[in-house]
Amino acid sequence: MVIDCHGHYTTAPKELQVFRDAQIAGLKDASIPAPGLVTVSDDQLRESVQPQLKFQNDRGTDVTIFSPRASAMAHHIGDARTSLDWSRQCNDLIHRVCELFPQNFVGVCQLPQTPSDPLANCISELERCVNDFGFIGCNLNPDPSGGKWTAPPLIDRYWYPFYEKLVELDLPAMVHVSASCNPNFHATGAHYINADTTAFMQFLTADLFKDFPTLRMIIPHGGGAVPYHWGRYRGLAQDMKRPLLADLIRHNVFFDTCVYHQAGIDLLLKIIPADNILFGSEMVGAVRGIDPESGHYYDDTKRYVDAAAISDRDRRKIFEGNARWVYPRINRRLPETVEQGGVAKDLR
Amino acid sequence: MVIDCHGHYTTAPKELQVFRDAQIAGLKDASIPAPGLVTVSDDQLRESVQPQLKFQNDRGTDVTIFSPRASAMAHHIGDARTSLDWSRQCNDLIHRVCELFPQNFVGVCQLPQTPSDPLANCISELERCVNDFGFIGCNLNPDPSGGKWTAPPLIDRYWYPFYEKLVELDLPAMVHVSASCNPNFHATGAHYINADTTAFMQFLTADLFKDFPTLRMIIPHGGGAVPYHWGRYRGLAQDMKRPLLADLIRHNVFFDTCVYHQAGIDLLLKIIPADNILFGSEMVGAVRGIDPESGHYYDDTKRYVDAAAISDRDRRKIFEGNARWVYPRINRRLPETVEQGGVAKDLR
Repeated sequence: MVIDCHGHYTTAPKELQVFRDAQIAGLKDASIPAPGLVTVSDDQLRESVQPQLKFQNDRGTDVTIFSPRASAMAHHIGDARTSLDWSRQCNDLIHRVCELFPQNFVGVCQLPQTPSDPLANCISELERCVNDFGFIGCNLNPDPSGGKWTAPPLIDRYWYPFYEKLVELDLPAMVHVSASCNPNFHATGAHYINADTTAFMQFLTADLFKDFPTLRMIIPHGGGAVPYHWGRYRGLAQDMKRPLLADLIRHNVFFDTCVYHQAGIDLLLKIIPADNILFGSEMVGAVRGIDPESGHYYDDTKRYVDAAAISDRDRRKIFEGNARWVYPRINRRLPETVEQGGVAKDLR
Repeated sequence: MVIDCHGHYTTAPKELQVFRDAQIAGLKDASIPAPGLVTVSDDQLRESVQPQLKFQNDRGTDVTIFSPRASAMAHHIGDARTSLDWSRQCNDLIHRVCELFPQNFVGVCQLPQTPSDPLANCISELERCVNDFGFIGCNLNPDPSGGKWTAPPLIDRYWYPFYEKLVELDLPAMVHVSASCNPNFHATGAHYINADTTAFMQFLTADLFKDFPTLRMIIPHGGGAVPYHWGRYRGLAQDMKRPLLADLIRHNVFFDTCVYHQAGIDLLLKIIPADNILFGSEMVGAVRGIDPESGHYYDDTKRYVDAAAISDRDRRKIFEGNARWVYPRINRRLPETVEQGGVAKDLR
């Protein structure tokens, strides 16, 4: 089985954007009525995810850990009410898609963060999505200001009530920013990658995982710049008298494989312990074209992992076993797999 | 000959910091008198750069393109006067070191940027350093706000008067941020690397190098996350109908080799055209320890380049020829080298 830990619902029916547009219009003009709930049929939802299903089939992946479009979370727009209403609409659609295709999608929720508010709404929405919908994780935005970086770092106690809830529910968080309203930062080309690098360095400097030994964070996009600069980070940790990086990340920090060329994936798999890598593709997402150098989609990351010089056991961890360990609630949604003499969830 | 394009004066005599401390104290308390000029003897300067000279000797490098300590530029502190006074003191010391050791150091200047001011002071200080001191380039901070990212992106016309001066004087700029006053960003572990990634993506999205065909930008720290995510950037450029990246960077964007492990350097040298890579070590700088895995300093980047599977000609470009092409004024300061039948400055 191949579990793709990183897929966003970038192909949602246009009614979702109509809701959002009306919501934003209402922020600017109070005379505009609040939009009603998003009304889309099951057929519309089925139709909307045909691209994902086709890619799963064509590429040989089985199930996608599926969350609302990351760039559209835009926690910097409006206030706590705006963010809560928008997040619920987005999460409701994810739930419906997962119910329609339970073998293909498992849900991860958007959180109703706002730059200024505490995380109480996030906790209640997380509980709703986990308890009512069977979601298995969440996307946590380290910069709800959208490129202004005004929130406290992820190691700050501001975030601790939310981490307590993650631990209680045995859920991981993917650290994932949204759109950038700072003209310096292109969203998918700079802001996303910067946030990944930033989050890792925050984790390096503090004892967050001593306070929360079972807290699990996925840093997407191959960990930003981190594997490429692994020597720098090992050296910084050493200069700062911090733990060895392999020990620091062991049970707590994971990188996905959203790196869109073979040499990048080869570096990732060579440098980062196999136990800390989850297969991901970000499809349908940031890069949509076909690489003329390979003749295949840039984001067909399974090809790169298939071609990498790693053991079969490590490949099975990356494709399935690690995801089952990091997102344990996925085991309630997916049948157990026994391949080549090992139960996948026990591989790690 | 081996030219290290990236060295900062991190070992300056303490008198420089005393000046700075007094300057900052005066910002908070107007009754504190402005500090006088930094007074240090030539012997103090000679003593202060012994670590750099020893590393050059031990590692087999010849000359360092030398600039003030990057993290201390701190353009976000004070106003235009503060930044100008501080930059002049720093640049004066660089000049004196270069005069004392003309075979070992060639100067690059700090610019008196401030978040709110136009670049007139930067142009005049650049001219002073080039015309009076023989400096060969500058460090340009894309975020003088120190982690708040309030300046316009590097492709904005705000920067154009400064670029016109760079082109007129035939100087390159290294894109280099300074300290971060944003608690989200560790300076050397996040802010530096993020800025590199951010600058590259800015260059990708606009026609800056059509407007300035001879403008040359060095992106340090191995180009941030860019080589690791080269497929992502190729794909983004393709989706955005931008030029091929190899064409976009050919005569205008260069990465240094400040990547502190073999696998990272191997990726850099495999992915980025040899014509666009300059040898750099950032010594004495961000990471000061010895890597227990190799037994050598993390920042002894010459070892990694020596060990990489590239042609001798490419290695000579990276060690010398490209630096002579990107920083043409260095040829006025250094003797021409003829090795293995080729003049180094004509290698590229």
